Amino acid sequence: MTSSELFQKIQQKQSFLCVGLDSDLAKLPGHLKSCEDPVFEFNKQIIDATHQYTVAYKPNIAFYESRGVEGWLSLQKTLDYLRKVDPELFVIADAKRGDIGNTSSMYAKAFFETMDFDAITVAPYMGVDSVGPFLEYKGKWVIMLALTSNKGADDFQFLRDPNSGDRLFERVLRKGMEWGSKDTLMFVAGATRAEMLADLRKIVPEYFLLVPGVGAQGGSLQEVAKYGMNEQCGLLVNSSRGIIFADKSENFANVAAAKAKEIKNEMTVLLNEKGIV
Amino acid sequence: MTSSELFQKIQQKQSFLCVGLDSDLAKLPGHLKSCEDPVFEFNKQIIDATHQYTVAYKPNIAFYESRGVEGWLSLQKTLDYLRKVDPELFVIADAKRGDIGNTSSMYAKAFFETMDFDAITVAPYMGVDSVGPFLEYKGKWVIMLALTSNKGADDFQFLRDPNSGDRLFERVLRKGMEWGSKDTLMFVAGATRAEMLADLRKIVPEYFLLVPGVGAQGGSLQEVAKYGMNEQCGLLVNSSRGIIFADKSENFANVAAAKAKEIKNEMTVLLNEKGIV
Repeated sequence: MTSSELFQKIQQKQSFLCVGLDSDLAKLPGHLKSCEDPVFEFNKQIIDATHQYTVAYKPNIAFYESRGVEGWLSLQKTLDYLRKVDPELFVIADAKRGDIGNTSSMYAKAFFETMDFDAITVAPYMGVDSVGPFLEYKGKWVIMLALTSNKGADDFQFLRDPNSGDRLFERVLRKGMEWGSKDTLMFVAGATRAEMLADLRKIVPEYFLLVPGVGAQGGSLQEVAKYGMNEQCGLLVNSSRGIIFADKSENFANVAAAKAKEIKNEMTVLLNEKGIV
Repeated sequence: MTSSELFQKIQQKQSFLCVGLDSDLAKLPGHLKSCEDPVFEFNKQIIDATHQYTVAYKPNIAFYESRGVEGWLSLQKTLDYLRKVDPELFVIADAKRGDIGNTSSMYAKAFFETMDFDAITVAPYMGVDSVGPFLEYKGKWVIMLALTSNKGADDFQFLRDPNSGDRLFERVLRKGMEWGSKDTLMFVAGATRAEMLADLRKIVPEYFLLVPGVGAQGGSLQEVAKYGMNEQCGLLVNSSRGIIFADKSENFANVAAAKAKEIKNEMTVLLNEKGIV
C-alpha cells in the first residue's frame, strides 16, 4: 500500500482511526473467559463492531507474547480474521523491534513473511542497519519511534545536538528520511505532546505520523489535527483502551462501536474542515 | 542471581563466556534438518558441547520469533534444557524490547514469568517507564543497550549533550544507574569499539557489561579485557556465529566445543593476569 492508497482509504471512510488491540487477557469481559480462545473471541467481536469506522488496527504484540505460544496463536487468528473482514485494512504490528542487521532481518521475516502485517513499529536506537532490513520489503511499512507519548520520552528524546541544533527525535526524522520514503516509512509521534507535532511537521511535512496517546493517555484529537494534519491527512490516530475496554459487560462490543463511531465522526469533521473529504 | 554470585560462577569456571544461540534454521548442519525440531536438536548438542566452558547463554529471540509458533516452542524447549543441564547458567533473552509502561510490563511477564529467563536486553529510547517494569522482578536482570557494535551505532549513540558533555550512550548509563543497581542492571557495550569501554568504565566502574561482537563481528577479546575488565571481572563476552556455526558438518558440536574451549582458555589467562582467579 502506498501513502496515496492509504489516503484514499481515509477519504473513503472519512476516518483516520487506528484501533489498538492491546487485548490484555486479565481485562477481558468476564463472560468471554470460558471461550476456547478468549483473546481471539474478544478481538473478533471488537473488529466486527468497529471496522466500518477505522482504516487500521494495531495489535500490541506484548499482550500476545506475554501468553507464550497461545498468545501467538491468538495473534495469527486475529490477523487472519482482519484480512477476511476487509483485505484493505492497514494492520500494524506494534512490536518496537530493532537489532543489528542480520537479526533485524529475522524480525522483518517474522512480521512480514511468517505473519503478513502491513507495518511494524521499530525502535531507532541502533541506527541504520537496525531499520534497513525492514525497509527491504516491497509494499510494507516501517513506523519508527520518534517522539513518544510517555513520561520517559524526556529522558533521551530531547537531547540536543549542539552542531545541528536538532533534538534526538528530530535527528531520527532526518535519518529516517535518508533511509526510507513517504511510501515506506512513518513516524510515531505521541498525542500527549500535540503542539510538538508542529515541530515534526517542519521536518517531515509529507510523512504519515502514527499518533498514540489519544484517549486513555490524555491526548486531544483536535490538537493532534491542528498541529499534525497535512494535505493528505498524514495521520493515523490510535486509540486502544478508550475503545476496546470502554465497557466490560456482555455489551462491550456495542460500546466499543459507539466509541469508535464517536471518534470517527470527530475525524470526519476535522477532515472536512481541512477540505480533504 | 546477584552480581557477586555471577562473579563466583566466573571464578569457578574461569570463564566469562556467553554463547549466543542465534540458531538460524537456514544455517543448521544439513543432517539435522530431518529432525522433528532441528533448532532444538542443534541447540541441545551445542549446549552439551559447550556448557562446561560458559557461564551464560543468550538465545537471540528474532531467530525463534521468525518461525512463529514453532520457533517459540523451540525456544521454550531450549530454555528448559539449559535449566536441566545446569540450573546455575545465566540465561539471557536477547530481545531488545521496550515500550510504554503497561506494555513493557507485558514484555517483562513474557520473559520473566511465561518463560523463566534470568535477563533480557532492553532498548532505552523510550526512557524510564519503558525500562522500569523489567526492574521490578526480584533476582532478574535488565541489560540495557548503551553502545552497540554495529555500524548504525554512529547514527544516534554519539549525539552529545552540550550541557553535560555526555554522549547519548553515556546519558543512558547515567540514567540506568538512577533506575537500577549493579545487581539488577547491566549494559550492552560492543566489542568492535573496545577502546571505548574505558569511557564506559569511567561512568559505570562496577556494573557488568554484556559485550557482543567478539569473533564474527571483528572484536578482540584482549582489547575488551584491557579496557573493560574490573576487579570482579564485570564482563560477559558473547560469541554466537564464531562458535555455533564454526562447522556445519556432522562434527559441528565438537568444533563448537573446541572453539568455546579456545575462548575460555584465553579468558582464563586474562582473569589470571588480572589476579581474580
